[in-house]
Amino acid sequence: MSDIRPNQVLRKKRFGGELNEAEIRAFVRGVTDGSWADYQISALLMAICIHGMSDRETLALTLAMAKSGDTLDLSDIPGVKADKHSTGGVGDTTSLILVPLTAACGLKVAKMSGRGLGFTGGTLDKLESIPGLNVNLGVEEFKAIVRRVGCAIAGQTAELAPADKVLYALRDVTETVDCLPLVVSSILSKKLASGCDVVVLDVKTGSGAIMDTPEKSRKLAEDMVRIGNLSGRRFSALITDMDQPLGMYIGNALEVEEAIDVLAGRTGGKLRDVSLTLGAHMLRNAGIAPSVEAGVSMLEEKIASGEGLKKFAEMIAAQGGDARVCEDTNLLPKAARKIDLPSPGDGYIAAIRTSEVGNAARLLGAGRLRKEDAIDPAVGIVMQKRVGDFVRRGDPLLTLHANAHSDVAGAMTILGRAVTLSQEKVTPPELIHAVVE
Amino acid sequence: MSDIRPNQVLRKKRFGGELNEAEIRAFVRGVTDGSWADYQISALLMAICIHGMSDRETLALTLAMAKSGDTLDLSDIPGVKADKHSTGGVGDTTSLILVPLTAACGLKVAKMSGRGLGFTGGTLDKLESIPGLNVNLGVEEFKAIVRRVGCAIAGQTAELAPADKVLYALRDVTETVDCLPLVVSSILSKKLASGCDVVVLDVKTGSGAIMDTPEKSRKLAEDMVRIGNLSGRRFSALITDMDQPLGMYIGNALEVEEAIDVLAGRTGGKLRDVSLTLGAHMLRNAGIAPSVEAGVSMLEEKIASGEGLKKFAEMIAAQGGDARVCEDTNLLPKAARKIDLPSPGDGYIAAIRTSEVGNAARLLGAGRLRKEDAIDPAVGIVMQKRVGDFVRRGDPLLTLHANAHSDVAGAMTILGRAVTLSQEKVTPPELIHAVVE
Repeated sequence: MSDIRPNQVLRKKRFGGELNEAEIRAFVRGVTDGSWADYQISALLMAICIHGMSDRETLALTLAMAKSGDTLDLSDIPGVKADKHSTGGVGDTTSLILVPLTAACGLKVAKMSGRGLGFTGGTLDKLESIPGLNVNLGVEEFKAIVRRVGCAIAGQTAELAPADKVLYALRDVTETVDCLPLVVSSILSKKLASGCDVVVLDVKTGSGAIMDTPEKSRKLAEDMVRIGNLSGRRFSALITDMDQPLGMYIGNALEVEEAIDVLAGRTGGKLRDVSLTLGAHMLRNAGIAPSVEAGVSMLEEKIASGEGLKKFAEMIAAQGGDARVCEDTNLLPKAARKIDLPSPGDGYIAAIRTSEVGNAARLLGAGRLRKEDAIDPAVGIVMQKRVGDFVRRGDPLLTLHANAHSDVAGAMTILGRAVTLSQEKVTPPELIHAVVE
Repeated sequence: MSDIRPNQVLRKKRFGGELNEAEIRAFVRGVTDGSWADYQISALLMAICIHGMSDRETLALTLAMAKSGDTLDLSDIPGVKADKHSTGGVGDTTSLILVPLTAACGLKVAKMSGRGLGFTGGTLDKLESIPGLNVNLGVEEFKAIVRRVGCAIAGQTAELAPADKVLYALRDVTETVDCLPLVVSSILSKKLASGCDVVVLDVKTGSGAIMDTPEKSRKLAEDMVRIGNLSGRRFSALITDMDQPLGMYIGNALEVEEAIDVLAGRTGGKLRDVSLTLGAHMLRNAGIAPSVEAGVSMLEEKIASGEGLKKFAEMIAAQGGDARVCEDTNLLPKAARKIDLPSPGDGYIAAIRTSEVGNAARLLGAGRLRKEDAIDPAVGIVMQKRVGDFVRRGDPLLTLHANAHSDVAGAMTILGRAVTLSQEKVTPPELIHAVVE
């Protein structure tokens, strides 16, 4: 029982005071056990948004949220345990690439994912497009696969940071989502509760990201790394571009296919570059690679030798999936129709508005608007061009993969506006804006 | 139907923007019809507390709240209609004195009171200690009495400013009570809805008031008068002292008795002085008296001639009460026991902490802690001394009027601490700190 009452905490923050650990713990306890009412929680969230939080407050909030439910103990798995988190983008399949690749280098990768809403499905939805694969693992099963195979990706079966669930739902309806200390504590609390020693964060920036400018993204990355390191784990963050889709494939099975293509060494490009850089930071932070450059080389070797793809196949098999997809991507679900969007003229591609591409993918059935929406694993979009490419009138800019239920007309309308052409040469946006450690 | 969504309003205020009329109307509509959730309302209240509101915003909020329910139309009653509002204190019986006195001068006083919580009962509770008196009047009955007698005091039978009820309940539990634009709009919206032309506000300051310093009280008074006048009615405010109880009698029937004593010309003192000054402002603002000084003279005349007391008797009779109490206060409920609190030493009374006297009166049974608590009309406290008086050890400082259920020991303990003595001469606090018009 806490002697600290909601009104005391609300009053202090209303006037811009710094909450102490006991007050923050009382708040998180009240959120978790329901003794704080929704209207009291949301009043405090608004006060936090307006006055901000000191590092001490953000750390205390993060730790209290991390301890608000189950915490995973991975200490009985030998080796360094690593996790990776992305703030979310379009065509962002890095997890499916770097998890098996880094595991092939000896890292233990225990990745718990939320399902979330979004333009396309999350990592769990992508994996579930592999026939038979199960992401709903019990804690012991999950740990056993990590111990034996070296990596596993599962849904949050344990109740990690339940306070975050309550807070997130209220933030969503009170216009307090994009508040740095709340974003930081939301992301970090789940990472801390999942028990890894090393965490690499991929903070997206641009039109398809929660932070739309490099400055805001940099501030978020810096705050997360600083607060994360204060908690005693090793954090790094990359700020990566989301001003166009990262990979060429957008959609659940399509993204699995592209990940397999990268692991098989058939595909290069931005998706591969970002995946290797993130993975190299994980190896370096874990002490497996002496530097990021050395880490990249190690990962490239695992692609060349086929060990990365083999590790992915092992993980798929361990989670009950059909590992033959790694050799034959035709075993993945396929859409019934493919429709090209032709270029309306000659020119250089000046911009591809990522958020619009994401909206179009959702209209085709690749993503959810509401938690209860069903996802079609087969549908999506394959980009044929990237920013900076020259196109002639009639050249396909992208290809829709659609099924009967897909809103093809709606997606086409959105996509027609998402791509802009220029008569001047265009320099593609930088891929990695900054590294924060 | 409004197109303005809660998130839009919340976002603007979160970043310190000025809400426009349409946005404020959408908010008040959402509060009234329930389409804004509690957690959205309280998030906005917190943002308003932190960022404040411009006059334009406060006026728009006041007007929207005033129009959120029924509004009283008094235009078919001839003459100038006046109302008076006090921010609440201890031993504050001015309404029972100035309502009949100003009505005796030709003003039409249509006073609607809330019941409220507090140290002692509100004006309605005091009136109900008069045998038979009914404050639950229908609108037409209320207006008929004002027309015929010149004054009436009733509970809010019409649903005046229902938005305020919702907002007040949330402010109470989210630490957003003492926020000037919210206090101003709460008080003024009910006054505007009750349809009077002239309103005089009595803003209390000191240990028994919602605003505890003259500066805060002055700011509240200035804001209310400015916003009130912007609404097209004539407002004035007095800032009056609450650093000791205003009258000598505290308790429901006891305060009726003191009011009758003042109207009968038997009692002077601070309660009479404040009542006459407030009443004189009402007469001056209504154009009945050429100046406040002239107004005070008119009211003194109505005491001397007995017309004020006669008007009170008429009002009591019109509301079904036993008007003989005006001639014989022994007909009012009386407590079973009277217990003196003796002075612990010789000296000048340096301070009487009003809020503690109020708490003691509540322990005796004179006030409510919860809405459903019952009030004992007979119990209370009679002050025997005021700040500045010299007392000898053993002299009674005050007298408790108690019944069997009263917590006499608890009240005595609180009161023993509430009065402090000094060996130096003490100057009594000023009674009227300022006039705001």
